Amino acid sequence: MCGIVGVIGKKNTTEILMQGLEKLEYRGYDSAGIYVNDQAGHDYLVKRVGRIKNLEAAVDDSIQGTLGIGHTRWATNGKPSVANSHPHISNDERFYLVHNGVITNANELKRQYLLDIEFASETDTEVVVQLIALFAREGLSAKEAFRKALTMVDGSYAFSLVDRLTPDTLFVAKNKSPLLIGKGDGFNVVASDALAMLSETDQFVEMKDEEIVALTQDGIAIETLDGTPVHREAFTVKMEEGDASKGTYPFYMLKEIDEQPIVMRRLVKKYTNDRGEVELPKPLLAALKAADRLYIVAAGTSYHAGLVGKGLFEKLAGVPTEVHLASEFGYNQPLLSEKPLFIFLTQSGETADIRQVLVKVKAQGYPTLTITNVLSSTLAREADYQLGLYAGPEIAVASTKAYTAQVAVEALIAQGLGEAKNHREAEAFDVVHQLGLAAAGQQALIDQKDAIHDWATDLFSQSRNAFFIGRGTDYDVSLEAALKLKEISYVQAEGFAAGELKHGTIALIEQDTPVVAFISDPKTAAHTRSNADEIAARGAKVLRIATESQSSEEDQLVVDDIDPMLAPLLMIIPGQLLAYFTSFDRGYDVDRPRNLAKSVTVE
Amino acid sequence: MCGIVGVIGKKNTTEILMQGLEKLEYRGYDSAGIYVNDQAGHDYLVKRVGRIKNLEAAVDDSIQGTLGIGHTRWATNGKPSVANSHPHISNDERFYLVHNGVITNANELKRQYLLDIEFASETDTEVVVQLIALFAREGLSAKEAFRKALTMVDGSYAFSLVDRLTPDTLFVAKNKSPLLIGKGDGFNVVASDALAMLSETDQFVEMKDEEIVALTQDGIAIETLDGTPVHREAFTVKMEEGDASKGTYPFYMLKEIDEQPIVMRRLVKKYTNDRGEVELPKPLLAALKAADRLYIVAAGTSYHAGLVGKGLFEKLAGVPTEVHLASEFGYNQPLLSEKPLFIFLTQSGETADIRQVLVKVKAQGYPTLTITNVLSSTLAREADYQLGLYAGPEIAVASTKAYTAQVAVEALIAQGLGEAKNHREAEAFDVVHQLGLAAAGQQALIDQKDAIHDWATDLFSQSRNAFFIGRGTDYDVSLEAALKLKEISYVQAEGFAAGELKHGTIALIEQDTPVVAFISDPKTAAHTRSNADEIAARGAKVLRIATESQSSEEDQLVVDDIDPMLAPLLMIIPGQLLAYFTSFDRGYDVDRPRNLAKSVTVE
Repeated sequence: MCGIVGVIGKKNTTEILMQGLEKLEYRGYDSAGIYVNDQAGHDYLVKRVGRIKNLEAAVDDSIQGTLGIGHTRWATNGKPSVANSHPHISNDERFYLVHNGVITNANELKRQYLLDIEFASETDTEVVVQLIALFAREGLSAKEAFRKALTMVDGSYAFSLVDRLTPDTLFVAKNKSPLLIGKGDGFNVVASDALAMLSETDQFVEMKDEEIVALTQDGIAIETLDGTPVHREAFTVKMEEGDASKGTYPFYMLKEIDEQPIVMRRLVKKYTNDRGEVELPKPLLAALKAADRLYIVAAGTSYHAGLVGKGLFEKLAGVPTEVHLASEFGYNQPLLSEKPLFIFLTQSGETADIRQVLVKVKAQGYPTLTITNVLSSTLAREADYQLGLYAGPEIAVASTKAYTAQVAVEALIAQGLGEAKNHREAEAFDVVHQLGLAAAGQQALIDQKDAIHDWATDLFSQSRNAFFIGRGTDYDVSLEAALKLKEISYVQAEGFAAGELKHGTIALIEQDTPVVAFISDPKTAAHTRSNADEIAARGAKVLRIATESQSSEEDQLVVDDIDPMLAPLLMIIPGQLLAYFTSFDRGYDVDRPRNLAKSVTVE
Repeated sequence: MCGIVGVIGKKNTTEILMQGLEKLEYRGYDSAGIYVNDQAGHDYLVKRVGRIKNLEAAVDDSIQGTLGIGHTRWATNGKPSVANSHPHISNDERFYLVHNGVITNANELKRQYLLDIEFASETDTEVVVQLIALFAREGLSAKEAFRKALTMVDGSYAFSLVDRLTPDTLFVAKNKSPLLIGKGDGFNVVASDALAMLSETDQFVEMKDEEIVALTQDGIAIETLDGTPVHREAFTVKMEEGDASKGTYPFYMLKEIDEQPIVMRRLVKKYTNDRGEVELPKPLLAALKAADRLYIVAAGTSYHAGLVGKGLFEKLAGVPTEVHLASEFGYNQPLLSEKPLFIFLTQSGETADIRQVLVKVKAQGYPTLTITNVLSSTLAREADYQLGLYAGPEIAVASTKAYTAQVAVEALIAQGLGEAKNHREAEAFDVVHQLGLAAAGQQALIDQKDAIHDWATDLFSQSRNAFFIGRGTDYDVSLEAALKLKEISYVQAEGFAAGELKHGTIALIEQDTPVVAFISDPKTAAHTRSNADEIAARGAKVLRIATESQSSEEDQLVVDDIDPMLAPLLMIIPGQLLAYFTSFDRGYDVDRPRNLAKSVTVE
């Protein structure tokens, strides 16, 4: 359940819904559906399994109206199927509901109130729409029935509801899942993401958790769940420029890999002044200086960027740093230091697992910083401080340039903070020079695409599993390189601390198991080589990638020298390209791997 | 390169070497070899690939002598083969050398000094023995040639060297790798582990790093590498009783799984007094109270036990705790708190990755505690404090009862420390009662072996990969259950934080991918169920294991209730049994999986 849109008061409702869903497809693409009502007695429901384009093929000119809702789904409860697609309908065919989120007590509600109802789907959403219909049959108005249902559900939701009997109103509500209202002249829209409605308006009204809103052609009536009216001004969303077309590239991912040197240079410009000194916003710098420990909270690829950040913040700024998985931190909060500061790393700024942490630590009064590629996102808006990644739109589901941008921004912050604290290591470090080395070294690797393509074919074309090993930041890179290969080529790859493999997992090594070893740090290069030899002694096919000063004649790929703290900015490039070419060679849809969504808006 | 033995002055040298190697087989079993010299002009060299039993079959009564060395190998440099087996010989056939460890500059030494030499093997060890021979040809005595070579090698070693021209002396030296001298009446022995020589003597002399020792029938002459003589007294090793035979069990692992309830009860007795209060050694308790942060350092299964310990120490004793992989910590030490205390978790007490951390943090003056199953081990001897696991000998390479013992000992320490600090949570917690619940709950699970066997067949018999998911301590268990399956059944299993899977790895889920979900904590049960549903919606075959109070009708296995902090003591039992039966069904040697060694004595 992932992306929702709604429109009231526009003649070309169907077109707006379809365009909006296309923009939201990054939130899931297991199935999609729309419901359109012409407020004159005709209405239409169309649902299809798979991509938005399948739905498009099924929508013709006869489907016209002035009120509509739409949905693109990432399956949580129940398989991808037409029956489980949204919009869901009450058995009396009065209510139509789309939903993003997970209702955790759906089964209990079903058992308690809806034993007589025959369900058409396996979804938690249908439980809610049947419940609304039940309360309406018991005499409540549509809005009151909706409100009563909302007070009873546990979990996360963004809902958009149509009552066929009152098609002059669109009802919406949210809790934990994102939903924005777009305000127009003679119409209103709603969507999970401003992006989906930017073609219609740039005026947006924020919705807060546990509010219920009735939208009409000309009005936006917000109330809390207990009925208190709320007045809230609109704000303007300015989208950053960015070429979101893939041009001559076969897939966005390859284009985005190629953009990384440009992003490095752009970040240096954004974060430094004419004298080449890092400049951070003063209130943020003061908050960072006041913190006795940093807590980086993230998920997936951003978590791997956070691991690199720990070394940067500890070494360059002398501040102890912990890195936590967002989904774990929220429910098992570790003991915190006296003055913690939270850093949230998120490409989209919409990750639900991070949002629940943000809500909890803000309630405890701790300062928060969101580092994101989307400065208009929920997590950017809700944190005390926000910094941009300026990587431009990232369309491919597998993140590449956002990862290197996160590492670079962490380095810039660490240097700025270290200098402000007169920390010796920061004064001896030249982040501008290092990011310049990164950009040049990335370009040199990108220029070796064909050789890397050959290794991808040699290593992974016949393989169902793979290992990536390294120590220190090479271990961090190993985790990220393995995730890339998993996400888009479905090879079960694992990243390992090179010294840890022998404590069990080395049992999986057999003849021709592919292993990639990253070697960039003089402190540990000899040890990682020993570990690679141990594995090779057991028959593995080992690809060794080393920085120039650490390289040896046995290495297949030599990477420019760079400070080991920032080696991931270079080492990940072959990792990304190996994953890309493996997926490409297998004929997969590189940009849209199965089961995944670009922005994970459920816990 | 893993286990070495040596004898001088005994008539039944061959027998002693073979018995010692059998005891050392846990350190590796890729190949084995012995060299025996009768000090009267006859000598014998026998080497075989594979288990000690292969070597045994090749050793007959004709092989007799009074001086000998032996080796059982875990391959690091070079494949398992007769050529790569130890003892290695110099080309002039004068020197015979066995080695445990890794020489990291072997290739450079070869290029610099031995360009003319034709090598018989791919090993670093042969480089050293050829180097010794070279220095001897240049005029040095055997001892001086050995000493000169030792000053030039980088890395880790335990060496035992025989010079055919002076067969009245056995030369030994160590650095980072373990080696003990056993002192006899008219004979002396050396071995990687006291266990291998206990049948001959209970008097042992410790060797320190970078010492060189000349052993004769009646003498032990210890010197430092720079030639300073060292006098050191012998100490007595008392072995703990323990039935190390597997009786009617097909494999040790099953016996050791079954012993876990007994170990829980034994630990309660060992660590509590008659009033049921935890009693810790007073100096240790004082050191723990003085610490402002605990650093648990471990590898493999012990690392997973450490993750559970973090929650116990933070909640019951209110002391912030970090858990680190030993192989990473040593070379990338994080910023430490002002008063850290280090806890080393190791079944064998010989893990090289941990030892290098211990040496470094002791040099920094920090207090250290080793928790181990072998109180006579290197890491127990060298730490400031040591506590036992009292699990009895663990013979199977895949650790089971040592894991649950580690978790239980952590709980006992946390409770003892929390009570000493008057920490509210410790006073509200009853560790004795909880460990009683653990013992009873473990027994109840062990009694359901047959049902768990059926699930293992159903889930894993056709499968090359698998996932284990959970949140909080169920996540810790997921990591350990996945490692068990990997180690002995070679299924590529991964443990995941239930909320993290959707951030990428869920792409690997396809029809019938086996997934095991652990659900024990009321705080997160609903969320983990949602994650399990997301995965099931994509076709996975999900086995749900829940504690009684969190269980639902969809769960296949219900486990007794226990405090969620200690849920791993129960949840891991089905994890261990699923791995055992999968390996058993496939006809593998459950106790001795390929590529692994019980005790990992190289970095």
